[in-house]
Amino acid sequence: MEKAKNYDLIVVGAGPAGMTAGMYGVRSGLETLVFEKGICGGLSNEAPEIENYPGFKKVRGMELAEKMKEQASEYVEIRELEKVEKMKWSVKNLEVSTEKGSYLTRAAVISTGTRHRRLGVKGEDEFLGRGISYCATCDGFFFRDKPVLVVGGGDSAVREALYLKNIGCEVTLVHRRGKLRAEPYLQKNLEHAGVRILWNSVVREIRGDKKVRSVVRFDKDREIEDELLVEGVFISIGEEPVNDLAAQMGIGMDRNGYIITDKNQRTSLERVYAAGDITGGVRQIVVACAEGAIAATSAYNDLLELV
Amino acid sequence: MEKAKNYDLIVVGAGPAGMTAGMYGVRSGLETLVFEKGICGGLSNEAPEIENYPGFKKVRGMELAEKMKEQASEYVEIRELEKVEKMKWSVKNLEVSTEKGSYLTRAAVISTGTRHRRLGVKGEDEFLGRGISYCATCDGFFFRDKPVLVVGGGDSAVREALYLKNIGCEVTLVHRRGKLRAEPYLQKNLEHAGVRILWNSVVREIRGDKKVRSVVRFDKDREIEDELLVEGVFISIGEEPVNDLAAQMGIGMDRNGYIITDKNQRTSLERVYAAGDITGGVRQIVVACAEGAIAATSAYNDLLELV
Repeated sequence: MEKAKNYDLIVVGAGPAGMTAGMYGVRSGLETLVFEKGICGGLSNEAPEIENYPGFKKVRGMELAEKMKEQASEYVEIRELEKVEKMKWSVKNLEVSTEKGSYLTRAAVISTGTRHRRLGVKGEDEFLGRGISYCATCDGFFFRDKPVLVVGGGDSAVREALYLKNIGCEVTLVHRRGKLRAEPYLQKNLEHAGVRILWNSVVREIRGDKKVRSVVRFDKDREIEDELLVEGVFISIGEEPVNDLAAQMGIGMDRNGYIITDKNQRTSLERVYAAGDITGGVRQIVVACAEGAIAATSAYNDLLELV
Repeated sequence: MEKAKNYDLIVVGAGPAGMTAGMYGVRSGLETLVFEKGICGGLSNEAPEIENYPGFKKVRGMELAEKMKEQASEYVEIRELEKVEKMKWSVKNLEVSTEKGSYLTRAAVISTGTRHRRLGVKGEDEFLGRGISYCATCDGFFFRDKPVLVVGGGDSAVREALYLKNIGCEVTLVHRRGKLRAEPYLQKNLEHAGVRILWNSVVREIRGDKKVRSVVRFDKDREIEDELLVEGVFISIGEEPVNDLAAQMGIGMDRNGYIITDKNQRTSLERVYAAGDITGGVRQIVVACAEGAIAATSAYNDLLELV
């Protein structure tokens, strides 16, 4: 175990919010360290094509995340593959425990983001990685020319469907309602692409042997079940906050489990800030970055006042 | 005069916030129009070098603004050189009057930004453009190898000083306090660059004939006035909100004249949102963009509920 070190700011999670917070932390003179349990970029890595991040007409999520990582790394150390397991107040400092060591810091930013919500149906665990995916950009390639099902009706489901259609999959979208939630702009694209949509339909089971072979769909209009032959199932029914750390620390969250912050990204706990998707609201990369910048700036201001 | 047209969203001001709001407005299906009294980009055009906008390691402000303009223009019409003079509620719509016409809209985003604060000393008006400038990137070139004075002690003053030093000016920074407000990172650079700093000093007058020849400085420590021979004076003592429109409409502002918004960028007036520097807070391009995105998203949501 590494011995406890002293930092001004520790950032948990290196998605766009965390990377920006790290960069702003160091630029304002704070001894800063960023931990990431996986790799930098968070869910932005999965975005096939981003058209609305200001400054880039079109950029793959992974490419943008890589640019941000390179940029942030000019300032701050980012420790990938080191998960923060616990954080608690110890006298005047926060004690941060990871799998590899323990650290002291005067302030912290929680930017742990969200994870994909699961359908919760039979077969979902069994066939994960064997036909079931939560990310078309990551896994779509394996399903070219094959029939795939996208589950969901929001922006990301439609983006997933478009991406898969575009690389040559035979795409069907299944949505539990009679209307999509996705932005009109995306809906138009979906229409032009000619993606088949099954309305008012619920996935009840995913079947197969070694890999996915079919999906049992319940048609709410006709009140019947049928079996759809597909080789891939892309589940895109939203995200849920990764709030284990926040819950453990007793930080105030809303009823959906997102951390509540004020306009300065302060949480209910002193010198603990939150930024990015974990705070809910408009879940856009540029918003996450802005919150990271604000969180680090608030930490800087609050620490100045401590002296 | 053009006849009144109907829009869903009109955005006033095409800095980073307004351009992003315009793009997000159209992408969410709103009939959107952006007005800009000058040219796109706002004060970001003046930033010599931006290192902390996520995604760009180093970019000139003008270049970033240009990229944002190109990108936003793929979606939304931006009318440059058309100043909005008045906005008021008229039954169910906002009536927007510009120099060139009148328009109706169901919602509006105010993103009019800030302008440079003036010193308010003798000679400031007289020598504007003849030795006095508020923007080193714009005018610095004319002062290469010449003695210039930068007035101020915040981030932008230090950036101006560094920029001028770098292009070969003989730079002196004059600051009314004994300590800079600029971020430590910038202060270090300033020290390395060897810029002379006059502490606890106030500019009392700017003198010259056809152009600036000297500045009268009051040294608060020694309680004496002296005359500094300089050919350029770069005033960088902060910005103030461009809030004429907001004041005219009676929108709630804080005591410094910045528009007060909630986390969704809603102002005190129904279906009127504010985004960017006009809302105060952390004045960073990425924050302005995020607020623009959020403002347009709130407009979209609120208009949906109207139907």
